[in-house]
Amino acid sequence: MKAEIISIGTELLLGELVDTNSPHIARELPALGIDVYNISISGDNQARLAATIKQAYERSDVVITTGGLGPTEDDLTREAIASVVGEEPYVDDALADHLRGFFASRGYEMPERNLKQAWLLPSGRAIPNPRGTAPGWWVEKAGKHIISMPGPPTEMERMWDHEVRPRLAEISTDSVIISRTIKTIGIGEGTVDEMISPLSKSSNPSIGVYAKNDGIHVRVTAKAPTERDAWLLIEPVEAELNKILGTAVWGRDDDTLASAVGVMLEDRGLKLAVMESCTGGLLANTMADAPGSSEYFVGGIVSYATQVKIDSGVDGELILEHGVVSEQVARAMARAVSERLGSDIGVGITGVAGPAEQEGKPVGTVHIGLWDGQGESGLSYQFNQGRDAVKARAVTMALMLVRRHLLGEMDPMRRTG
Amino acid sequence: MKAEIISIGTELLLGELVDTNSPHIARELPALGIDVYNISISGDNQARLAATIKQAYERSDVVITTGGLGPTEDDLTREAIASVVGEEPYVDDALADHLRGFFASRGYEMPERNLKQAWLLPSGRAIPNPRGTAPGWWVEKAGKHIISMPGPPTEMERMWDHEVRPRLAEISTDSVIISRTIKTIGIGEGTVDEMISPLSKSSNPSIGVYAKNDGIHVRVTAKAPTERDAWLLIEPVEAELNKILGTAVWGRDDDTLASAVGVMLEDRGLKLAVMESCTGGLLANTMADAPGSSEYFVGGIVSYATQVKIDSGVDGELILEHGVVSEQVARAMARAVSERLGSDIGVGITGVAGPAEQEGKPVGTVHIGLWDGQGESGLSYQFNQGRDAVKARAVTMALMLVRRHLLGEMDPMRRTG
Repeated sequence: MKAEIISIGTELLLGELVDTNSPHIARELPALGIDVYNISISGDNQARLAATIKQAYERSDVVITTGGLGPTEDDLTREAIASVVGEEPYVDDALADHLRGFFASRGYEMPERNLKQAWLLPSGRAIPNPRGTAPGWWVEKAGKHIISMPGPPTEMERMWDHEVRPRLAEISTDSVIISRTIKTIGIGEGTVDEMISPLSKSSNPSIGVYAKNDGIHVRVTAKAPTERDAWLLIEPVEAELNKILGTAVWGRDDDTLASAVGVMLEDRGLKLAVMESCTGGLLANTMADAPGSSEYFVGGIVSYATQVKIDSGVDGELILEHGVVSEQVARAMARAVSERLGSDIGVGITGVAGPAEQEGKPVGTVHIGLWDGQGESGLSYQFNQGRDAVKARAVTMALMLVRRHLLGEMDPMRRTG
Repeated sequence: MKAEIISIGTELLLGELVDTNSPHIARELPALGIDVYNISISGDNQARLAATIKQAYERSDVVITTGGLGPTEDDLTREAIASVVGEEPYVDDALADHLRGFFASRGYEMPERNLKQAWLLPSGRAIPNPRGTAPGWWVEKAGKHIISMPGPPTEMERMWDHEVRPRLAEISTDSVIISRTIKTIGIGEGTVDEMISPLSKSSNPSIGVYAKNDGIHVRVTAKAPTERDAWLLIEPVEAELNKILGTAVWGRDDDTLASAVGVMLEDRGLKLAVMESCTGGLLANTMADAPGSSEYFVGGIVSYATQVKIDSGVDGELILEHGVVSEQVARAMARAVSERLGSDIGVGITGVAGPAEQEGKPVGTVHIGLWDGQGESGLSYQFNQGRDAVKARAVTMALMLVRRHLLGEMDPMRRTG
């Protein structure tokens, strides 16, 4: 089956919003055996929107739209679809009652213009939207489908997950395409390419190597009549890749490096605390976002002012001697936060995120320290990127340092005392 | 003039990458007097790509593409454009020499397949790309323009800023469209709509009201022969809006709430520290990202574990009495961090970001406290959203609380002692 995705809204055409709905949907269609040939953005102009939907309807089996289902005059998706399939909308009494009830439960009377959200077409049905007032539309005519979902991502995603995706999986009978992504860190793209070369000639599953912010990803993609058959093609290749790449592999698919490190900490019964300055809380926030992180993540100190470092236990003499942006201070921060917050492992990050240099050290300088109760280790980097990228890379490298430490891969730590 | 933007790459169609190039370009075209009617994404399939470019070329004056200019077999933008305008590409000697020099300077011989990046069309010229090997293409035929830039955003953005945007500004003779966004917080969409109704009948400049994560935005958009004329239309309306909306206005255009609060803190010579649990470091990170934040942002404590709150000065009895998720504890966190890190103002956030409830309190519960050295105040919310949105909203509300406090708008604070 062939699908097209259309995102609707003048704000998208003006670049005021970035369309994240289309990628969200596009990512999941190959596994349903549905190919996406076009994605487009249309504004709130009925004639142009109808032309875009008409073209998609003529050349595809499934047209998926997001946006333009609100109650205002600028919300024209229903009107455009009605004109494409040549039908007249009518007010559905059950939908209208539901909508009036929604407003009543909040103590308001429903504005008359909201009645548009109770429209239906003879060839269509409503798709429930528990997160908003706009139901979706599923129009089915001449063996083709036009599926319209609301634009706000939280409303769209719930509708997609619970209503649209499952039904599309039933409808589609074509081969499915499944991918498994294996995520590595600590070895370069060329090295990965070379290591896996015995496998990379295969065409089904096919193998691709991609450099990403959190390391090198290897993607294995299989095409087969059913999801099960596709997995049977992927599994032996995945096993072989895991064998070849060894401990460089930290996760797969939607795993994040923080969640992978979190699992290792939890398995070992260890607790982590962090002290950071140039990353401003991003490392703590990244750890906190890992599922179940309260089991192993104690918390952190954002020592933006130097005095906060000193008050938290970093030796002021050390700062005077090496500068606040130094590996020595990063290591001392790691030890101080571990002792202050009571964790088994402490991590410290200090550096220059930018925009301006600091202590004569250039933007992109990052020092990371680790303390495990007995000794310390550290890594230093020079990133050539903008502020956001430097912060993100610093967090990734801090997580890599914890991971390598837990794997026993760090050079013998400099033991103190 | 009418323009269309086409982003090219199968990774975009598969949703593996989000297209940020099109919004970047789209944002700047109205100010050049160029209207965008369509944005689309096409994969690395020559026939379908050529069909998409052909349609855009037929119905628009300017077609702007990004991506597909690499050296591989999957990079088909040049081939597609050549077929649309019916011309044969040739190898440009100067471009080929430049390309060979680029590789030689890095100690490599140029792979033969890279020669494709030295192609030109009789109706085209190359656009310099100092950040990569792929020059852009500017094809001009029958009064229409096809402009192709590389896909990597750093290469595209430099080419756009230095080569494409300035030349388009010269070509376009149409009216320009300029917008000014005025950002408010603390009053609802309907109220803003009502307050500004005397102005909203105007059609040039036109006025739109938008609900955003950081409050209600009012956008004033003017169309005029020149940028200067457009600003002259906007200025009196902006002044009037600022008068009507008063202290609810916290910034404009690209201002962030954190930077606006930061300016207020700096003006008053006050320092801020934060203690947060459910937001996991996001508030600290948001403050740290504001330009010049080291002038007023001392740092923070991420008290993910309850023991960290107690060790940082929050009364354990208070936690036992009210629960860790309570406004009382949020207020105590604010006071504790202010005293611990030595700031004039302290902010505390505690709540349930999800995915699971806590202490029987539902996901989305957020309590925020503020301490100013003499007294405390607090706000409590119940957000009905997912984890990321709850965290983002909690940070916004914390910033709003600081702002209202600095404006003297909070209810008389509960003075202690």
